[in-house]
Amino acid sequence: MEEVEAKVAEVELAADGELAADGGGKPADVRKDKPKKEKAPKEKKEKKEKAPQGQGKASGGKKEVKKETQLGISAKKDENFSLWYSQVVTHGEMIEYYDVSGCYILRPWSYAMWEIIKDFFDTEIKKLGVKNAYFPLFVSEKALIKEKDHVEGFAPEVAWVTRSGNSELEEPIAVRPTSETVMYPIYAKWIRSHRDLPLKLNQWCNVVRWEFKDPTPFIRSREFLWQEGHTAFATKEEADEEVLAILDLYRRVYEDILAVPVIKGIKSEVEKFAGGLYTTTVEAYIPNTGRGIQGATSHCLGQNFAKMFEIYFENDNRERKMVWQNSWGLTTRTIGVMVMVHGDDKGLVLPPRIAPVQVVIIHIPGKDIETNVLIEACKETAKQLKDAGLRVEEDYRDNYTPGFKFSDWELKGVPLRVEIGPKDLASKQVKVVRRDNGGKDFIATENIGASVAKILDDIQKSMLEKAREARDACIVKATNWDEFMAALNSKKMVLAPWCDEKEVEERVKERTKTDQHGAAKTLCMPFEQPELPEGSVCFSSGKPAKKWALWGRSY
Amino acid sequence: MEEVEAKVAEVELAADGELAADGGGKPADVRKDKPKKEKAPKEKKEKKEKAPQGQGKASGGKKEVKKETQLGISAKKDENFSLWYSQVVTHGEMIEYYDVSGCYILRPWSYAMWEIIKDFFDTEIKKLGVKNAYFPLFVSEKALIKEKDHVEGFAPEVAWVTRSGNSELEEPIAVRPTSETVMYPIYAKWIRSHRDLPLKLNQWCNVVRWEFKDPTPFIRSREFLWQEGHTAFATKEEADEEVLAILDLYRRVYEDILAVPVIKGIKSEVEKFAGGLYTTTVEAYIPNTGRGIQGATSHCLGQNFAKMFEIYFENDNRERKMVWQNSWGLTTRTIGVMVMVHGDDKGLVLPPRIAPVQVVIIHIPGKDIETNVLIEACKETAKQLKDAGLRVEEDYRDNYTPGFKFSDWELKGVPLRVEIGPKDLASKQVKVVRRDNGGKDFIATENIGASVAKILDDIQKSMLEKAREARDACIVKATNWDEFMAALNSKKMVLAPWCDEKEVEERVKERTKTDQHGAAKTLCMPFEQPELPEGSVCFSSGKPAKKWALWGRSY
Repeated sequence: MEEVEAKVAEVELAADGELAADGGGKPADVRKDKPKKEKAPKEKKEKKEKAPQGQGKASGGKKEVKKETQLGISAKKDENFSLWYSQVVTHGEMIEYYDVSGCYILRPWSYAMWEIIKDFFDTEIKKLGVKNAYFPLFVSEKALIKEKDHVEGFAPEVAWVTRSGNSELEEPIAVRPTSETVMYPIYAKWIRSHRDLPLKLNQWCNVVRWEFKDPTPFIRSREFLWQEGHTAFATKEEADEEVLAILDLYRRVYEDILAVPVIKGIKSEVEKFAGGLYTTTVEAYIPNTGRGIQGATSHCLGQNFAKMFEIYFENDNRERKMVWQNSWGLTTRTIGVMVMVHGDDKGLVLPPRIAPVQVVIIHIPGKDIETNVLIEACKETAKQLKDAGLRVEEDYRDNYTPGFKFSDWELKGVPLRVEIGPKDLASKQVKVVRRDNGGKDFIATENIGASVAKILDDIQKSMLEKAREARDACIVKATNWDEFMAALNSKKMVLAPWCDEKEVEERVKERTKTDQHGAAKTLCMPFEQPELPEGSVCFSSGKPAKKWALWGRSY
Repeated sequence: MEEVEAKVAEVELAADGELAADGGGKPADVRKDKPKKEKAPKEKKEKKEKAPQGQGKASGGKKEVKKETQLGISAKKDENFSLWYSQVVTHGEMIEYYDVSGCYILRPWSYAMWEIIKDFFDTEIKKLGVKNAYFPLFVSEKALIKEKDHVEGFAPEVAWVTRSGNSELEEPIAVRPTSETVMYPIYAKWIRSHRDLPLKLNQWCNVVRWEFKDPTPFIRSREFLWQEGHTAFATKEEADEEVLAILDLYRRVYEDILAVPVIKGIKSEVEKFAGGLYTTTVEAYIPNTGRGIQGATSHCLGQNFAKMFEIYFENDNRERKMVWQNSWGLTTRTIGVMVMVHGDDKGLVLPPRIAPVQVVIIHIPGKDIETNVLIEACKETAKQLKDAGLRVEEDYRDNYTPGFKFSDWELKGVPLRVEIGPKDLASKQVKVVRRDNGGKDFIATENIGASVAKILDDIQKSMLEKAREARDACIVKATNWDEFMAALNSKKMVLAPWCDEKEVEERVKERTKTDQHGAAKTLCMPFEQPELPEGSVCFSSGKPAKKWALWGRSY
């Protein structure tokens, strides 16, 4: 490679995001003020939402792009959502594309978010008595196919190892798509007496589902990271109770950490976990695409798996009983949902609780002051903020203007920027700028740790509120088919009285699937049900309605 | 399954270990006072060290076994090491065998140890500026075969995914055996300028090596958990420095946490990492089998990978240079080494720093006292110990005798037992019993947190000292072939003057391989070299010796 090519490549790199991974916390040397070339792989182009003008703008015209290049994002969220998303996650340094289709690299910026989610959830489940363990990546075919409904749900997506080195394996071995069939043969061995119950295990691991739907970073990938909890109880009551306790932890991950409002509910028979008894879910919504997205699910497996895997225990009357089981999982999808909900045309917008860096401190040089003096003041402020338990980054790069740095950290979504210039120094204050609403303020350096912590709390709260308002504005009630279709086609979720019959849901799917759009389906039957007027009928079948169901197109 | 069968199974279960995973911290209801049947899979039987009398004793005679059954371990460490090890890890509830050969289940007891190791190492590397990320499980063939020496080292063990569902993949995809070839194509993209360096990433993940050598829990498994660090620098000096900094962290994991002494050194050309420049290692030793074991390795990759993957940067003189790279990894093998070094005929012996439970409290009922009163006293003691930051378990099971409980927790290796009986209560003291040396003492309940912490520190220290003495007694100097063979055959490591030639090491391997034993090889050239007398010659080739090398049979 010639030096000239290296420079070209360096410019292209700026379009793809780059790594700020060194020890000193110095972001990489990139030139965001140069024209960019979109380099996301072709799967992105297969996506469905294409605002007509957006695509041309991004891939073509240098002139149009140039004005926004310092932000690193050329696509508009409202105009070309899928290109926008791809740019945000790559230029925001969360994701790098990879040469195995459907697999993505989680860069330190997004992996740190996953670590924050893990820490929270892991701590909470340990309080519930759950212990972590690790079960193998591989499943024998014999175990995998044991529960019929379950295997039907997963078999088309299973990746099979058939060779090692140059030798064919005697039997092909599946890569786990989920671990029910890995764990439960052993549960049958471990559980003998009521004293062995409840058994509550969890693992943090990777799973593989070789899907052929559009792969999308975080949202749908062939390998992803998750936690999977697998528990067994003596009674259905205990299982039911845990299903909801875990579901509420999932709600807290979304609402309290990611500032993403979710709707709790139960899945329909069509949508429930393959082989399970019932599935509860937290459902999020992406207003820009009008699509619902399953946030995380907590399943009661009932006794189906117990029966197939012969998981029995002796109760205190020495009777042989089958256990009741749950399984529950939360994936890296969480991060993608958060990006989609909060991001804007400048890039990521991170709620403080998930932000790997909550505050970035930037010095604003002036001609009558030594830069070192400013930097010393910044360092003192940084120390105070760190002492207050905040995650702080200091950006003293001397090869960029403050304006460039502002854009750079806005692209990465850091919730609060602290600027310190000569005037601030003189008046013992700093300037703070919020990423979520652009709000600017000056605050005293005295007791700055507490002041900034308060601002961050406010950002966290107001981001959730704003997202909730946007989401609520997208829920429409419909009592007949025409209202249902009108709402659906205006990118809404639809709350409709429903007869709760499998065939009716299948029929709705058929009727709503078009060349442009996927089928509408039930997202859930919300736990919080509006009153159902006497004599209500299903919006689709006209049969007596049993409950309100939330419908929508979805990821 | 009939009830009768269920009971038989319950008895068998006791032999295989079972899960103490419920929330209340109550271990499972098992009957360790029943005869046991060894159920470890057949791979165990392929192992090499078979003390003649041990095997028969364990698999056969009910009578002989019975006297030891309350301990759960029938094999003796000195007599049948491999059966002993298998019993310790299974009955000690660390490992469960699995139906895919070479894969094992890490139960909560051992996984908690891995979490402790992770926490320590993760905190330390973050101080060095390393960031965590996650790269895909799968590697394309094209990337995998890019570095010739590297792929030759790993290709025979690579597992290949060739199918998804019922469809053949267009190209087979490898499951990562290590991630150099996954990461470095991207490093070439991320690294452009000296400002992008150093790049320091790490990931905690699973890797797969489809080996055909004896699988052994923790020590050699087809899937294992590890961390792999991958760093790039502008200069060799920086890379060299990091190699040693990481190696010292590995030493600290072994010596400070696991109380296992290790020897630091550099690997020979034959033994170094495939494709790397040089490999440093911490080597442990198992006196009972006379085999060395590689503890963890920190590699300087030099510029070989940089060349193949075209990882260049522009230095501050705008010259195009190749980066210098390192990679380094620590696996769950650590846990197995610790078990082998410290375990005894009663089961696991855990150094306090790795013990998921450091102190177990057991009440000793008496006829003149209400059990509740004793339990209250135990709870008060537990609180004090927890407040002192210790990991404490309370065992109030009413269906077992104190003696049974003692054995149960000894089997699981808990470092210190606290007993509280009526007399102790009266004299405001507790009885403490050390797992490592059986030492008993009485200590005052006043300020018990500090007293117990001090005892645990002492246990930690004396376990390392004891292990170091045992290890040191196994190092023998040899200056000629006869001395070398004599030492080797008496289960020693051999420190011998060596010419440091590849062909000579290969020849030594050929000459030492027998039907009973694997070949001897260099474990490392220790950094701490004894003086090499002038005119020393290689113990094997007779050529001039360049250094002392440590040789041994190994895992």
